[in-house]
Amino acid sequence: MSDEIAREALRAFVRERDWEQFHTPENLAKSISIEAAELLECFQWGGENLVAAKDELADVLTYCLLLADRLGLDPQAIVLEKLEQTRSKYPAEKARGRSEKYDRL
Amino acid sequence: MSDEIAREALRAFVRERDWEQFHTPENLAKSISIEAAELLECFQWGGENLVAAKDELADVLTYCLLLADRLGLDPQAIVLEKLEQTRSKYPAEKARGRSEKYDRL
Amino acid sequence: MSDEIAREALRAFVRERDWEQFHTPENLAKSISIEAAELLECFQWGGENLVAAKDELADVLTYCLLLADRLGLDPQAIVLEKLEQTRSKYPAEKARGRSEKYDRL
Amino acid sequence: MSDEIAREALRAFVRERDWEQFHTPENLAKSISIEAAELLECFQWGGENLVAAKDELADVLTYCLLLADRLGLDPQAIVLEKLEQTRSKYPAEKARGRSEKYDRL
Repeated sequence: MSDEIAREALRAFVRERDWEQFHTPENLAKSISIEAAELLECFQWGGENLVAAKDELADVLTYCLLLADRLGLDPQAIVLEKLEQTRSKYPAEKARGRSEKYDRL
Repeated sequence: MSDEIAREALRAFVRERDWEQFHTPENLAKSISIEAAELLECFQWGGENLVAAKDELADVLTYCLLLADRLGLDPQAIVLEKLEQTRSKYPAEKARGRSEKYDRL
Repeated sequence: MSDEIAREALRAFVRERDWEQFHTPENLAKSISIEAAELLECFQWGGENLVAAKDELADVLTYCLLLADRLGLDPQAIVLEKLEQTRSKYPAEKARGRSEKYDRL
Repeated sequence: MSDEIAREALRAFVRERDWEQFHTPENLAKSISIEAAELLECFQWGGENLVAAKDELADVLTYCLLLADRLGLDPQAIVLEKLEQTRSKYPAEKARGRSEKYDRL
């Protein structure tokens, strides 16, 4: 599915509620952290609640799309761009099967 | 842009490095929280570093896409589905211009 | 050790650098989240780095003490007060050996 | 107040519920991140809820004290030790009135 559909639906939702005023980059960054912790809570104490995780992941993604919009960024493009950087930091032959940081490979 | 391109590129990247073993839902949820905090750090002490924010947002999105994949979820679909729920919690006429939680509107 | 020694040392440190201006409750709360994520990073990908964890825990505690000070709260007193509330939510006989939330016990 | 009183009360509370088994360093680190985000939520959208913040700060502190205990660390001692490191990174005369990171002073 094109992500433009979700992004446009989010924009309309925000516009209809006059919520652009609350959506400063800083406030959206706080919301992403808050929702990320709610996602983490689905895995607290060694268990996992995947039904709740789906909901919380949707919340993190929603605020990420809103922040991308606010900053004039295309979500897919920045993911691909960052992947190119990560690719050069973690060459497949060196990083295979290892979880160390690139400066310890 | 279709988000399938970014998702497929991420899958190939992970597969080439045998990293599926590290990408349990719990580990990905931890990574999302960690990257979300690095994004928040761009707004610490009242300033804002939007260049760094772009990079950190890309990291949060990357882990979100990887978690969606791991849970067999379509990122756009869960965002739209959650938006429908939020829409009924925050009717436009009640929520307009207000940042209160739905149970205080 | 009395926690007054650490708190007084922190106060002097902040005062000597004129940093009270940056230590709004909100900024300190952001810093606590950021440092908490750095602590979490010591346990990413299934490993644990306890040497680094000590350092990051010190950072989280430092910002907690600064926030307590800013809000005029005694850290030990609020911990004990909250423990009383938790005690009544989680009676020993019901909660023994279980990690469920109190509303599911 | 000596922080030994709070720490001993926490230990007894955990022991009575057989909760040591859940309190691995990793699980406590996750809990600190989760509670830190609940604290941050008191400052979402530009407002501040200081009554709720007191409660959430108590939760973060509680998990910090439990983690210190689990790692055999004295909370006050590690705060003071870290402060000495920070003091040398941020000399008062260079850092006065500035919020930049030490490598940019």
